[in-house]
Amino acid sequence: MEASQLNWLSASDAARAIRDGAITSEQLVEACLARIREAEPQVQAWHYLDPEHALAQARALDEQHREGRPAGALHGVPMGIKDIIDTRDMPTEDGTVLHAGRTPARDANVVAMLRAAGAVIMGKTVTTECAYYHPGKTRNPHNPEHTPGGSSSGSAAAVAAGMVPLARGRPTNGAGIRPASFCGVYGFKPTHGLIPRYGILRLSRALDHVGLFSRSIEDLALLAEQLVGHDERDSDTRPRARVPFTATAAQEPPMPPLLAFVKGPVWDRAAEETREAYAELVEELGDRVTQIELPESAAAALDWHRTIMEAEMAANLEAEWERGRDRLSEPLRSLMERGREIRALDYQKALARITLLNEGFGEIFERFDAIVTPPAAGSAPKGLGSTGDPAFCTLWTLLGTPAVTAPLMKGANGLPLGVQLVGPRHGDARLLRTARWLVNRLED
Amino acid sequence: MEASQLNWLSASDAARAIRDGAITSEQLVEACLARIREAEPQVQAWHYLDPEHALAQARALDEQHREGRPAGALHGVPMGIKDIIDTRDMPTEDGTVLHAGRTPARDANVVAMLRAAGAVIMGKTVTTECAYYHPGKTRNPHNPEHTPGGSSSGSAAAVAAGMVPLARGRPTNGAGIRPASFCGVYGFKPTHGLIPRYGILRLSRALDHVGLFSRSIEDLALLAEQLVGHDERDSDTRPRARVPFTATAAQEPPMPPLLAFVKGPVWDRAAEETREAYAELVEELGDRVTQIELPESAAAALDWHRTIMEAEMAANLEAEWERGRDRLSEPLRSLMERGREIRALDYQKALARITLLNEGFGEIFERFDAIVTPPAAGSAPKGLGSTGDPAFCTLWTLLGTPAVTAPLMKGANGLPLGVQLVGPRHGDARLLRTARWLVNRLED
Repeated sequence: MEASQLNWLSASDAARAIRDGAITSEQLVEACLARIREAEPQVQAWHYLDPEHALAQARALDEQHREGRPAGALHGVPMGIKDIIDTRDMPTEDGTVLHAGRTPARDANVVAMLRAAGAVIMGKTVTTECAYYHPGKTRNPHNPEHTPGGSSSGSAAAVAAGMVPLARGRPTNGAGIRPASFCGVYGFKPTHGLIPRYGILRLSRALDHVGLFSRSIEDLALLAEQLVGHDERDSDTRPRARVPFTATAAQEPPMPPLLAFVKGPVWDRAAEETREAYAELVEELGDRVTQIELPESAAAALDWHRTIMEAEMAANLEAEWERGRDRLSEPLRSLMERGREIRALDYQKALARITLLNEGFGEIFERFDAIVTPPAAGSAPKGLGSTGDPAFCTLWTLLGTPAVTAPLMKGANGLPLGVQLVGPRHGDARLLRTARWLVNRLED
Repeated sequence: MEASQLNWLSASDAARAIRDGAITSEQLVEACLARIREAEPQVQAWHYLDPEHALAQARALDEQHREGRPAGALHGVPMGIKDIIDTRDMPTEDGTVLHAGRTPARDANVVAMLRAAGAVIMGKTVTTECAYYHPGKTRNPHNPEHTPGGSSSGSAAAVAAGMVPLARGRPTNGAGIRPASFCGVYGFKPTHGLIPRYGILRLSRALDHVGLFSRSIEDLALLAEQLVGHDERDSDTRPRARVPFTATAAQEPPMPPLLAFVKGPVWDRAAEETREAYAELVEELGDRVTQIELPESAAAALDWHRTIMEAEMAANLEAEWERGRDRLSEPLRSLMERGREIRALDYQKALARITLLNEGFGEIFERFDAIVTPPAAGSAPKGLGSTGDPAFCTLWTLLGTPAVTAPLMKGANGLPLGVQLVGPRHGDARLLRTARWLVNRLED
């Protein structure tokens, strides 16, 4: 591979090449920076980037490698970090003017874990306003007139454009999966509570997940493996054994997986391209897939999700509301107005549904390895005024189940269309194994 | 000890005697049943008791012992279980006519753990209505014209009257500590989330604790040690190493503990007997105690506690509200009316205070081994129309800190007056060690 193409290496290959001394982290970061100089004017994925600071990290890691000091699994590999995740050496402005100039004193827990694994923190990627609705400046790398999706707009676009092999986001409503599908990369939302969220802008304890972006399943596994942890400051995490993501994802399944095709509660919003693509997919998968109906209660999931999201965002962004509600976008302001009036009774009822709803899915995941279902209504819509409809991810976000999307199809206009797989809670590593099987099967 | 006096054995001594073959479980249960026949007409501690079923359990455990099969730490020891805790072989009616005849299919997790430890589940002890305010039939064993306290009225009274050596309750507002103080027994409320609550009537995820009653510190430690556990169905529990309650509580402290005397946010309600008794106590403890003031935020704790309790009870008892609100007592009905109108915003703010408030106490517990503070305004008030004022326990319940009360003092009328110690979260075993030190020191 030419030095100028190193930016297209997968994270796993790059980490191996650095470990073996075939390339240096500095060379890799140089290649990524060159690609950013080239593509950033069109894509606008970065909210903050200091090339010198990135190179300095790379050189320090190379020095460490030369001295033979122990290297982490991501040693020398650059990553983009969504700008709602605290970094002690870069601003974190959360996509709102209310946080302009905010410079956290400490790294978010996940950033600390990434540094411990040897990653180069390349810079901060663009988010929508407070990771909610109002778009940032980023454009779809496949066509600048189309949205990259949100809220992790910059993270998905940067990986798609070859600017970095990996990026991190934090979805509250499928925002890891939709932009990955729109930008044509792999996206992974691990089980709720698996990865600690301390130091990440908090919108909703019940719905906030951590999202990962890459250009291969192997890379998602490598990244996820570094991030599982227990943090007393995130009450939804638990002490757990390390999940062997990489080893499990690399295995052949003991027998070909059985998938459940689910149209889901908002299939009536699915674009024609989606209907056609999924009909072909089901055809192609033959006896490995069965179409099933969801428990009736799933239909109400969108209402419960909205109740929880509005009530929790109203509470978590209350300081911003008090300080400058007039500087919030209109959609965020109305969401908070609604959220402030929700009764504790209705909020708690909606929360209680999460457990009940998960019980309803138990039977499905006893019969099937994973659910296959669209990650979005279609490919990235034209226009930059909205990041697209999150409804196709809402149910899975509410459930807290792991979900992965793979860029295996194309829409009518040639833009990417993801295939989403959803697995049972804490079946994360096996879900990646199933996804890898699917990728191999469809790419054959 | 005469056979007719076996009911006064501590649980630890009884378990040892059974293990050594000095007595049988059947003899012990017979003695407890005899004492119940004698004292129950006056005390009325039991909501359900089937002597034959208790004896059958005892005989089966004796048989097991004779066969040399492994015995648990509570092998053959009888226990009272508050009637809001599910038992598969006895009704569980939660102190409300709305649950009359309710017979759960499964044991609560704690009951299963007690059976695994070899305990005889003696029967169900009286609770107030839904473990809230409205009194049951129980009377104070020291004077039947006085309340035993609540909501674990029967549990505390049964232990005090020598009917069982151990009992279990589940406080939401200090209800483990107040009845123990009123009835002159030891009461222990372990750290919130240490003991799983699955299968216990749920009023408030944030405030519900598990409460333990006995006639010695050693017994509290023995019982608590059996009950620490992780249960996915109680989201506040965590996988943890077993806490060595018995060993730690039996140790001498490496140096005499340092206590902080705290009057607390409701000292103005303290009875004269309490003011005098605590003045003497502070005098007696000399350089081992220092009076301190609480962080200012503690004053608002009662408001936050009320917001959380009302909002969560309104949600958790909604089925009862829908089915028969006219058959709820007036105080419970008004509480639920208020709770139904609380905004999710205010509820979440109150919840967020728990963490902040605990941070404020960090410094106190760095300087002091424990806080010493009254468990109630005074000794058990006269009359059976109310179970007394829970306000002295409210702050500690909100904090989720462990608390223990020891029957070391007397009120003006000769009724018991407890000394309450409060420790830092997860300092449970050391708190019992400090309490044992205090008991020895004051009984010298």
